[in-house]
Amino acid sequence: MLACVALAHLAEPGNRALGQLVRRVGPVEAVSLLHHGEVGGRLGDVATARLGGTDPYLLAEEALTMAERLGARVIVPGDREWPTQLDELVLISRDGPEPHRRDTDPPHCLWVRGPWPLAQACERSVAIVGSRASTSYGEYVAGELSYGLAERDWTVVSGGALGVDAAAHRGALAAAGCTIAVLACGIDRPYPLSHQHLFERIAEQGLLVSEWPPGSDPHRLRFLVRNRVIAAATRGTVVVEASVRSGARYTAGRARDLNRVVMAVPGPVTSAMSAGCHAEIRDVQAVLTASAADVVDAVGKIGVDLAPIPRAEPTALDALTPLQSRVLDGVRPRKILTAEQIALAVGVAARDARRALPGLEQLGFVTAQGAGYRLPHKSDAPGGEAAAHGR
Amino acid sequence: MLACVALAHLAEPGNRALGQLVRRVGPVEAVSLLHHGEVGGRLGDVATARLGGTDPYLLAEEALTMAERLGARVIVPGDREWPTQLDELVLISRDGPEPHRRDTDPPHCLWVRGPWPLAQACERSVAIVGSRASTSYGEYVAGELSYGLAERDWTVVSGGALGVDAAAHRGALAAAGCTIAVLACGIDRPYPLSHQHLFERIAEQGLLVSEWPPGSDPHRLRFLVRNRVIAAATRGTVVVEASVRSGARYTAGRARDLNRVVMAVPGPVTSAMSAGCHAEIRDVQAVLTASAADVVDAVGKIGVDLAPIPRAEPTALDALTPLQSRVLDGVRPRKILTAEQIALAVGVAARDARRALPGLEQLGFVTAQGAGYRLPHKSDAPGGEAAAHGR
Repeated sequence: MLACVALAHLAEPGNRALGQLVRRVGPVEAVSLLHHGEVGGRLGDVATARLGGTDPYLLAEEALTMAERLGARVIVPGDREWPTQLDELVLISRDGPEPHRRDTDPPHCLWVRGPWPLAQACERSVAIVGSRASTSYGEYVAGELSYGLAERDWTVVSGGALGVDAAAHRGALAAAGCTIAVLACGIDRPYPLSHQHLFERIAEQGLLVSEWPPGSDPHRLRFLVRNRVIAAATRGTVVVEASVRSGARYTAGRARDLNRVVMAVPGPVTSAMSAGCHAEIRDVQAVLTASAADVVDAVGKIGVDLAPIPRAEPTALDALTPLQSRVLDGVRPRKILTAEQIALAVGVAARDARRALPGLEQLGFVTAQGAGYRLPHKSDAPGGEAAAHGR
Repeated sequence: MLACVALAHLAEPGNRALGQLVRRVGPVEAVSLLHHGEVGGRLGDVATARLGGTDPYLLAEEALTMAERLGARVIVPGDREWPTQLDELVLISRDGPEPHRRDTDPPHCLWVRGPWPLAQACERSVAIVGSRASTSYGEYVAGELSYGLAERDWTVVSGGALGVDAAAHRGALAAAGCTIAVLACGIDRPYPLSHQHLFERIAEQGLLVSEWPPGSDPHRLRFLVRNRVIAAATRGTVVVEASVRSGARYTAGRARDLNRVVMAVPGPVTSAMSAGCHAEIRDVQAVLTASAADVVDAVGKIGVDLAPIPRAEPTALDALTPLQSRVLDGVRPRKILTAEQIALAVGVAARDARRALPGLEQLGFVTAQGAGYRLPHKSDAPGGEAAAHGR
């Protein structure tokens, strides 16, 4: 787990090269390789520059301490709270001519603040996004949609920005519903500043989420990178108001890439802020939605209103306890480590590591050798290494 | 031709039973059968009641005299000015459970007032329709669309009603373009009364059209029957504002039945007057159009902007002069009539009938027998009888 947190310090979230490395060697090995300058190319340069000689695990531990002080928690793939649909982002992170698809790798960890388990809050969720330069019409519609969705027990996910985003969060809060703000900066950085109070209310009644460590500044590019998480976490994305070129349409595009439902709210043809919505409907077959009922209808065609979310098949890893997952994270494929060394690497007590390792061995996830443990080789155990590396 | 005019007095336009009779025996024979009470069922009853003992040709001649006094003309299928795409209405006039499809037969004749040949004016035409209870937004958009279409040399067709229709006509007039008002009453009956001046301007700069004889009152049902002509005459229909249940959507439905392009203008989701447009886009895949350019794009995908209008193959009848067409109309299939009798039946001078008949005989449309003429039997000539009856 600590390795995943360290990864957040070694490159920008969404970085495809880092994602590929982690998929190949696992997060612990990836951190180790980057730490020791054994990765070439741009990724290696970036990581080296970012570390400036510091131990990445120190940065990770500082970030965890900081999170604790902020009343936040950090979750990583494999945690019960991790929304596994985020891992589908790997499907659209591939070589391609389109620059906007370059940094669409799944997040390695998320900072979360608020009373709900994130995965559960995302299960019935819809993204409501739109322009910051919204009109009163757009804000009114965003608020009404959100209120109606929250009343129907749907979580409203948005980006915490001015305009449509804020109206969407406020609509859900007004209906005493759950709303998630996915930020493009540290969760300790209220951006925009005028939303400090709104973010406090969201952290009390919903969830503040970010893939950037506390203290990270918002940058223009980060908003676009963040948008892929909004698209991936939800069943569908509603564009309420957007100009023809708009970040909200970028979110819609990622939702489309992931086979999520893309919806758009029409508006006056005389309004430039509706032109992007009309283009979504006319040119890329977004579903025209005029009400919360329309949205629920579009995202919940199957069953009562619940379409099954396309997910990866459950793996043996899903059955592990959080402690087991965390300890497993520190086991290396080719190097034999003692329980104490593993505990140090992943930031758990040595006692806990000693407690967890025999169980992991029994399940075939680790192999005991001499006084220590390593990951099983492919020939040792069914799926053990591959599954561990898949993290 | 006189027979076609008489038909307009024997049943309501669009009447399917009458259409079927005319397709079977031709207009002249149909009038004769109805006149002599030789048609059973509801159609026979209606025609007998409407005639009240009067000769249908007398009514027809009166209607022609009236038209002349109004500065209007009467056109029938086969005339150069007849928009042949109206005959495609026969495609949707079939037995079916849907009551609205009962009276969708093509018109038998049209009263026309204005400086343009109707067929030519309809060639590049779009219907712009919408609610009478329109908002200022709807009227503004209708006017802008029409103005833009007229500027691009497209004819704007509408129904002359309050609200969206009027705004559409006015937009085209303002751009010095051609606009056609298809009325649901006699062209001498300004309805609504407040549009008297508008109709005068349309008659000067565009065309006033009706399938009802002068003096006919507008009825609720007639508006719906009229709408099929608006749908059939044009390349596509744009719904600018409509409630969920609206006559404008009826027009859109007929346009869809005829494989015309159906378009709708979005508006605020807070407006009931846009709800019908949104339903058209969401539920029946109307093309979302926000501008005149969008409309031209939608109706004119092929070639520069001209999609080929699906039409019937040109027939030998199309090559006849108006006089020949008219005279041919009076020739009967089984009864031999002199040139004088034929002239009387169709309302041309005996001299003109004597002049036209030898040409018709040469073309194989009539057969001379003794001192008179009859229609050729199927064995006599290729296509002659069938073609004549097809009228």
